[in-house]
Amino acid sequence: MSGKTLIEAYEQTAYPLGGNGPRDVQVLKEAFDQVQGSLGSDMYGNGKVIEDFQNKMASVLGKESAVFFPSGTMAQQIALRIWCDEKGLKRVAYHPLCHLEIHEQDGLKELHHIEPILLATQDRLITLADVQQLDEEISCLLLELPQREIGGQLPAFEEVEAISAYCREKGIKLHLDGARLFEIIPYYGKSAAEICALFDSVYVSLYKGIGGIAGAILAGDKGFTEQSKVWKRRHGGDLISLYPYIISSDYYFEQRIGKMSQYYEGAKELAALYNACEGVLTKPEVPVSNMFHVYFELPEEKMASILTSVLEASGVGLTAWLRDAGDGISSFEISIGDRYPNVPKDKLQEAFRLLNEKMREQ
Amino acid sequence: MSGKTLIEAYEQTAYPLGGNGPRDVQVLKEAFDQVQGSLGSDMYGNGKVIEDFQNKMASVLGKESAVFFPSGTMAQQIALRIWCDEKGLKRVAYHPLCHLEIHEQDGLKELHHIEPILLATQDRLITLADVQQLDEEISCLLLELPQREIGGQLPAFEEVEAISAYCREKGIKLHLDGARLFEIIPYYGKSAAEICALFDSVYVSLYKGIGGIAGAILAGDKGFTEQSKVWKRRHGGDLISLYPYIISSDYYFEQRIGKMSQYYEGAKELAALYNACEGVLTKPEVPVSNMFHVYFELPEEKMASILTSVLEASGVGLTAWLRDAGDGISSFEISIGDRYPNVPKDKLQEAFRLLNEKMREQ
Repeated sequence: MSGKTLIEAYEQTAYPLGGNGPRDVQVLKEAFDQVQGSLGSDMYGNGKVIEDFQNKMASVLGKESAVFFPSGTMAQQIALRIWCDEKGLKRVAYHPLCHLEIHEQDGLKELHHIEPILLATQDRLITLADVQQLDEEISCLLLELPQREIGGQLPAFEEVEAISAYCREKGIKLHLDGARLFEIIPYYGKSAAEICALFDSVYVSLYKGIGGIAGAILAGDKGFTEQSKVWKRRHGGDLISLYPYIISSDYYFEQRIGKMSQYYEGAKELAALYNACEGVLTKPEVPVSNMFHVYFELPEEKMASILTSVLEASGVGLTAWLRDAGDGISSFEISIGDRYPNVPKDKLQEAFRLLNEKMREQ
Repeated sequence: MSGKTLIEAYEQTAYPLGGNGPRDVQVLKEAFDQVQGSLGSDMYGNGKVIEDFQNKMASVLGKESAVFFPSGTMAQQIALRIWCDEKGLKRVAYHPLCHLEIHEQDGLKELHHIEPILLATQDRLITLADVQQLDEEISCLLLELPQREIGGQLPAFEEVEAISAYCREKGIKLHLDGARLFEIIPYYGKSAAEICALFDSVYVSLYKGIGGIAGAILAGDKGFTEQSKVWKRRHGGDLISLYPYIISSDYYFEQRIGKMSQYYEGAKELAALYNACEGVLTKPEVPVSNMFHVYFELPEEKMASILTSVLEASGVGLTAWLRDAGDGISSFEISIGDRYPNVPKDKLQEAFRLLNEKMREQ
């Protein structure tokens, strides 16, 4: 035993499995290397740099209009606020593990005074029946595809179609948390626009699978996006210059939009390797995007020690961190990107042989 | 007459007078040229890149702690919200031409439900007497130094000291809108920290005189800044990576913090040239920072035509735009930066000789 922590061991591995690469300044430098210095900045939401990218994203998402936001947190609160104001009812529904519920310091409640109804439970997806059984009126339903906090699970496309049809019938706006929308295109076998057509408003992230620096797009019809610009100013998101994020988003969109099937296939392959180990399983068992969660039937401290030794012996970076999932179980999340194909298959096999061996010894 | 508009003529001048240079991608490229690609990103407000700069700014401003924000709009609403919550009273006071009142789509009211009392009038600064005569209790008074929308005017430092003492006595928090704080240091002959010592919380911009790409600092005691981080998350401003703005802010801070006296002297010289022309005056008459407003006793359309011809004949970019100030008067704002010393004095004299000649012909 070296006495290293898991993160220390991970940082020294030759073959990290997840992600596109380190989050460092090189990400920005690479994106700007091919850009002329004389290209003018956007100015408070106007200018060619921002307008061209917004138009491109509107087209990709099949929506009339799109607005670039510094963050999804800002974009999504604003989307829900607009739909609530339109109906005159400050109530929405979303999953209990929705980003707005657990990662935003209650911005939706504190800034917008919107009451969320939590649909479904922490361990499963929202179904049509959940929506039909709502006993209070709502302005908007938010669906997150894939549902990140439960491993990136997805409903059948037909279920989303049925929820969409029901919401339209009942006058409920349907908003897509598509932080990882591009990552589910291979599984659904639909275009981004075909998926977005089921929704009134759509948020996508530019730094998940796409691997930009930061930034988000909010798309919908023109009336909706024009209102969103007013709220963007109110939130303090209408920066004089957003081009550092826009140019890098566009650059990495072009680099990676065609690789989503490769990431998805990698995720399925890697999940199968975990599921073949004793005392290990993944959620979902077969990934439906580039991400999944890995669960170990051992508590965090014990498991971290095992993983550290596997990382040190194999040079393969399975994970940099681990969290306590309760009941003597530990887990982590992984998203497959550019790095995965660079890991030699024999190294990968060796890492999993070691992991399985150590799990069996317990 | 060439038929060009003022902005078209300006864009072809060899010697623009205001600002530091074009707002283009080169501003970012230059700042990142000397940065190692392996430097790690900040992550949601943590990491060396953001913490080092925040500590540096806290030290410059003489405050216990500082937080980097994507925008001043976000930072200032949050500062006022924290002070209102602390007192349990959602009422503040500021100038009628305060940024929060006229440039933020009423974010303070719409998101925070804070009621502002407008102190003083649109054409003069807030005085101690205005504060003493408030007939309603307030949680916080915001002072903008210099008051941008009236040409960047400043109260005497003793007046600010007296307002600060009065507010402390009455339990009113004093917040500094220091968007152009660094620019007033030469006139006051005080350090940033000496000015900030009169205030409970301070916002400074990194893209005015400093010339960064975007970004702001909010500083105060640790309890205040820790609360501001929670609100930053709520507003959607706690981006995974803010380093494109932080690194450029730090780079241009180092480049320009020592040039504020040069900008101030340039502004005084240029204002004197305007005031020597017939039918032209500046506010303030003698600038107290790097900025001032120029007023012409001619309506916008007529004056734009005169300026266009002066720009075309002299090659000196006096201004790119002009606004209607009512009553047959037109005006524009100018801020002096790196460009001013590059304008040959004979070209400058020629431009003003032409301007004065054309004003006399009217």
